[in-house]
Amino acid sequence: MILNLEELAQEVATKTQIPTLERDVLMIFSSIISTPNFWEIAYRSARPFNQVAETLGILQKKGLIGTDNEGQIFLTPEGKKIFAELKINPLPDYYCTACSGRGISIEKLKELKEKFAKITKERPAAIVNFDQGYVTEETTISRIAHLAHRGDIEGKEIIILGDDDLVSLAAALSGLPKRVVVFEIDTRLTDFIKEQSEKYNLKIETYQHDLKYKLPLEFLNKFDTFLTDPPETIKALELFIGRGLAALKGPGCAGYFGLTMAESSYLKWLHFQSLLAEKFKVVVTEAIPNFNEYVNWDYLHSSIRNDLSFLKIKPNLNWYRSTQFRIITLPESATTNEDFLDEDIYIDEESLVYTKMEA
Amino acid sequence: MILNLEELAQEVATKTQIPTLERDVLMIFSSIISTPNFWEIAYRSARPFNQVAETLGILQKKGLIGTDNEGQIFLTPEGKKIFAELKINPLPDYYCTACSGRGISIEKLKELKEKFAKITKERPAAIVNFDQGYVTEETTISRIAHLAHRGDIEGKEIIILGDDDLVSLAAALSGLPKRVVVFEIDTRLTDFIKEQSEKYNLKIETYQHDLKYKLPLEFLNKFDTFLTDPPETIKALELFIGRGLAALKGPGCAGYFGLTMAESSYLKWLHFQSLLAEKFKVVVTEAIPNFNEYVNWDYLHSSIRNDLSFLKIKPNLNWYRSTQFRIITLPESATTNEDFLDEDIYIDEESLVYTKMEA
Repeated sequence: MILNLEELAQEVATKTQIPTLERDVLMIFSSIISTPNFWEIAYRSARPFNQVAETLGILQKKGLIGTDNEGQIFLTPEGKKIFAELKINPLPDYYCTACSGRGISIEKLKELKEKFAKITKERPAAIVNFDQGYVTEETTISRIAHLAHRGDIEGKEIIILGDDDLVSLAAALSGLPKRVVVFEIDTRLTDFIKEQSEKYNLKIETYQHDLKYKLPLEFLNKFDTFLTDPPETIKALELFIGRGLAALKGPGCAGYFGLTMAESSYLKWLHFQSLLAEKFKVVVTEAIPNFNEYVNWDYLHSSIRNDLSFLKIKPNLNWYRSTQFRIITLPESATTNEDFLDEDIYIDEESLVYTKMEA
Repeated sequence: MILNLEELAQEVATKTQIPTLERDVLMIFSSIISTPNFWEIAYRSARPFNQVAETLGILQKKGLIGTDNEGQIFLTPEGKKIFAELKINPLPDYYCTACSGRGISIEKLKELKEKFAKITKERPAAIVNFDQGYVTEETTISRIAHLAHRGDIEGKEIIILGDDDLVSLAAALSGLPKRVVVFEIDTRLTDFIKEQSEKYNLKIETYQHDLKYKLPLEFLNKFDTFLTDPPETIKALELFIGRGLAALKGPGCAGYFGLTMAESSYLKWLHFQSLLAEKFKVVVTEAIPNFNEYVNWDYLHSSIRNDLSFLKIKPNLNWYRSTQFRIITLPESATTNEDFLDEDIYIDEESLVYTKMEA
């Protein structure tokens, strides 16, 4: 048997509507021989979830991989032969274990982390409606450390656009910012943030707001730093980053947000970077891979495709990660603050839930 | 005394010809109260060297800072008053000490690091002619680990454009790549790489070549990965990255290179990112700050301005750092392979040596 990589990539692209290269497929092959668990394969491949799933589905149909009783993936003898011919190498892991590859240490912030863990213990569960899924406590505290390291939080006015991660509580607990403002669509979250901030005497201004609607005038040009973690359609990225920029005071202010490989192809990343450079004219000063680690959410299996045996097993790690971007505004930067009412900002072909929606 | 930040930023911009914001000045102020050593202030500010030097020069003239016998910087009583009024906070350091903030650990590569240190012991000194300045051994080995982690070196054909960092020797020593090719202008370096590779039986193809001249045809579309560390004029960035892209086989290949804050303003970063997204149509998958740490070079003091007392002291750390970028090519990507003969690719207004040249 000969495996035609070009045809395989083309088949994956056609079925998923996600641009797929031979090298994407080879990267997924390298991940397959690095770990037997689908979710870890998806994590190490750093490729769109549905591209990884479809590629493995085709390999399974061709008899190159199989799954055992527990849904773990193995290469069949035929698969082993083909992988050997293709000289597929496993991927070594060189991420620093002390900081989980972030480069930012929270060693000095143990007390903050404990307080944050305590007050967020009863946090609302992530729900599918607003594309929720929150990050680990380590991630939230690492964000605070990162902002502090860059001079973007101490004595500053910060705004958080969408806060299922509860960054507002961590920021206020740190005692560093001058002002913390949250805009969040989900009343479960605004209620929770209000409750905890009253209980622990934290100064946070919390507003229930659907960010499809423009920011109220009194919040424009009032902040030094914004944080957000948008859904990953181009429209949502444009919307959330645009709103964040509209809230900033002017040149030299900072914005922080995450972008995944799991729901965004390289082509979407390129479109997005073009938007940053050409439309918003902001500079990316950092893009730290693997910075944001998401806690596995309850609705995962009910929201994705369920036609492949290896998808039925539970993740063996927090597989869904994102790259943390930091941007800085210049005198040249531009934004708008218009309503975005006509479009679905939550789902495109690269979303985790897309194939389920189509099925 | 009242310090007008807008006027100060404007004065720095006029004198240095580097775009300077009030927030740049405030960041430099925060660094001043974080450390008394000029070079550490320049490092922590993450701003153009000449912008930092000029800002401190003006503060000194205004009597807000002074220098002691050793050239260490302190705030005068007047300076303390003004910094207190401006509520300047020191910058905490949250970089992970285990990986120096890179997120990539070389713990597992101790042997490679020792071998590399041994064979590069007699390396040629950095000289000013070709804007040289090499990175620490830890940095070079971290680059190898980073490439390995991403599947960009094992079994791959790699090309290095300019190699005062001797990445070629580290790559060949690792035993991972299928092919290692170096283009380098400096015969001291090509001779050294040839000598060591013969002595230690490492397979490296080394070519003496001025990259202002296009790559020979037989090297086009032949590589999986390129590495480079260009001078930081826009022309040089365009030239080196363009040559790297021309050498790559096609979509899904990777390029790695550094960019500093010390010699590149945010505006230059923006122009450069626009070039990547619009002209080359490549995607930035990572931009890791502080990844590349340069060994202090002998010609530093003879090449920069010498009119400020605090510049005369020796650096107390490897202060010159750069952000490591990783880019990926797409089917949409484009490049050229033309000669660049008319322009000075080494120096612009933001170069360390610029004010010296003007003096």
